[in-house]
Parts: sequence; C-alpha cells; structure tokens
Amino acid sequence: MLPALYSYYRSSCSYRVRLALAYKKIDYDYKAIHLVKDGGEQYSEDYLKLNVKAEVPLWKEQDFLLSQSMSIMLYLDKTHPENPIFPSDARSFARTVELCEIINSGIQPLQGLRLQQEIERRFAAAKGDVKDFCRFWIELGLQAFENKISAGGLYSVGNELTAADFFLIPQLYNAKRFAVDLTSFKRLLEIEQNLLLIPHLQKATPEHSPDFSP
Amino acid sequence: MLPALYSYYRSSCSYRVRLALAYKKIDYDYKAIHLVKDGGEQYSEDYLKLNVKAEVPLWKEQDFLLSQSMSIMLYLDKTHPENPIFPSDARSFARTVELCEIINSGIQPLQGLRLQQEIERRFAAAKGDVKDFCRFWIELGLQAFENKISAGGLYSVGNELTAADFFLIPQLYNAKRFAVDLTSFKRLLEIEQNLLLIPHLQKATPEHSPDFSP
Repeated sequence: MLPALYSYYRSSCSYRVRLALAYKKIDYDYKAIHLVKDGGEQYSEDYLKLNVKAEVPLWKEQDFLLSQSMSIMLYLDKTHPENPIFPSDARSFARTVELCEIINSGIQPLQGLRLQQEIERRFAAAKGDVKDFCRFWIELGLQAFENKISAGGLYSVGNELTAADFFLIPQLYNAKRFAVDLTSFKRLLEIEQNLLLIPHLQKATPEHSPDFSP
Repeated sequence: MLPALYSYYRSSCSYRVRLALAYKKIDYDYKAIHLVKDGGEQYSEDYLKLNVKAEVPLWKEQDFLLSQSMSIMLYLDKTHPENPIFPSDARSFARTVELCEIINSGIQPLQGLRLQQEIERRFAAAKGDVKDFCRFWIELGLQAFENKISAGGLYSVGNELTAADFFLIPQLYNAKRFAVDLTSFKRLLEIEQNLLLIPHLQKATPEHSPDFSP
C-alpha cells in the first residue's frame, strides 16, 4: 500500500512536503483536505481521528501518522536518502534547519488562515488590516532569510539544494497571495528562478495538485 | 574560547537550549540579552550585527552563528553525541520533531512578546484580550501535544528523554505565566514531574539563570 499525503493545494506547509516528495521521486496517494469548503474538511470527525490538530500536511504509512512539515521532511530524508534535502555536514545541516525555521515558526504561523479568523473575530479587525498585519511578518521574515543565506550560490545554502529552498518557494507563493512587494528581495527571486529549472518540481505546485481549483 | 549562548532568562526558546546544554553538560559563556529593558537589547546595533532577526537564543562558536532553538538543538546533538536528545530510530526521531514543532511553530509564535505588542498597537486591543488570545493557542497546542504523546512512558516519547521534553518544560512555564489552567493536562504534568528528577536540569531554569530578576 502506498503511503498517503493529506494535503490542500494552497497550503504552504503541504506544498513544502510535496516539493520534497517530487524531488525525491517518492510515490504516494494524494488525499485532498479542503481547508475552506463546508467550514473546513480538517474539522471532520474522520480527519480529527487522524490529526487532532486539524491541520495539513499529514503523512500516513499504514498505522504510522506524522504531522508537521518539518518532521515529515526530516523523516523522508532519513528513510529515503536518495536526493538528500538536508546536508550531512553539521554546520550546513544546522544552517538549513535555521532557514527552514525562519519561515516555519517565524512567518507561517503569523499569516495562517485560523490566525486571521481569530484576530478578525476577537478584535473586530477589518480584513484589510489583518492582511497588513500578515504582510508585516512575511516581510520581516523574508528579510531575515535573505540576510542569512550565503552571499553567492545557486540556492539558499550554497550550491546545494536543501529543504530550506522547499520552505522558501511556498512562502514566496504566499507572499504573492498577500501582495507583498518582492522586488527588493533580489537574492530570493534569483533562487526561485534557479529552483524552477529543476525537473519534476513543477508537479508539486498548487496548480498541478489534484485538488487545484482556479 | 568557549562557545556562547545569547539568552534571556524568561525566553522560552532560550530555556529550551539551556536545558539541552545542561543535560549534555556542555560548557558555554552566558550572554544576557534583556528583551524588555531600554526597549529591548536585541535591537541594539551590536546585537543586530549578530542576529538581524533580533531574537534569542543565538549560539556562537567563533565565527559560526546559529539562531533558532530547533536548529541549535539539532546541531548540539550532532556535534555532542553524548546524552542524545534526538532518537536515532527514524520514527521516534520524527515523532520527537513533530512534538517539538507543535510547540515551536504551533504555540510559541502565537504568544510572543512582539506579537502581543503588534496586536495591541494595530487593533487597539486591550492587554487582557490579547492574553486571552494567547491562552487560546497555548491550550489548543498543549491539547494536541498531550494527544500525540505515547500513552505510557516517563517522557513525551516513551521512556527516552528527548528534545520534545525540553520544548515542553518552557512551554508549561509560559502557560503558567499566562495563567492557563493546567489541571486537565494530567500527562503533561506527570512528565514535568519526571523531568524535575533529572540532575543538572535545575541550573537551566529561569530562576537559576545569571540574568534572573524576580
């Protein structure tokens, strides 16, 4: 039985894992969880049994269930060492995780759907002001990311493709959805261009996901 | 020259790293960065040169600088394999990182000082309402954490002490600061009790940090 990824095409955390799976050429069943339709399929009784935290992505190998994109990606790299996405050298490995976390804990939680809903509801905030708030964290985090990557190099950690790049692409995708002006992030846009040249990654994009809807 | 940890006694992210260092018996220089005094020492020109993201913890080994508690702890485990805090078995390792992330990206960013300040400022929110908002995420995250840990076992991942425990202790400390009612989190409180029995961990607590102030 193939392992399964529970995913939503537009979820940036799911997108990270899809990129890793595509790059590593790992086969899996795509299980779509629509985060908006009918109040969110992640709150269905069936899904809550799999992930009490009501979030995607979720990785399933028979009875082994794993949530959180960072743990899924580290796990995939341990169990499928071909096409590594975490460097073996301790410092490059640490730098990769640091960059991942600047996005994973430093940006994504501060622009998520549920956060926006809670702020609107609790503080009677206007949608536009909440989007501004999200943009603030996205810009702050991307600035830190750009400052911490190597000066040269094709990707975020030198010339080696790493998980940091698979956190960056979906965050840039999100930044565009929030209408963040990316023109000053020259290095990040260069890296994005370099990444787009890598075969197979295209099929991980939201547009190529089975549950994409325009 | 000893490596240095830039830390603030009350920062839960710094506290995680201090626990790992104490458990692994790694010597280091403690560099205090007061996150509140004079508008926050993390915004000083000198500190921004070290960490443009203006956050603690920061680990420094000569010219190697590393931010983000998750990357520092993974790095310390690679470079100081004695007293491991990440299991070697792929699934236990993944479970450990998953639990760490439930706190690292799922709770901490949604109750941090800067987040509170931004919400107050942008949405004219009352301090008490912002604390309520933070409590909501703490309770939601701790509930998920408790649901995902093994049913028995001394610690978060079975009978093996892991980094997940070093994320849990500071988060429980934070929960108390936010006056979260922890009585229903029976397993988490049991684990906390078991952890308090481990020698050397006491010196990592906020109260035993060089910059502690009552």
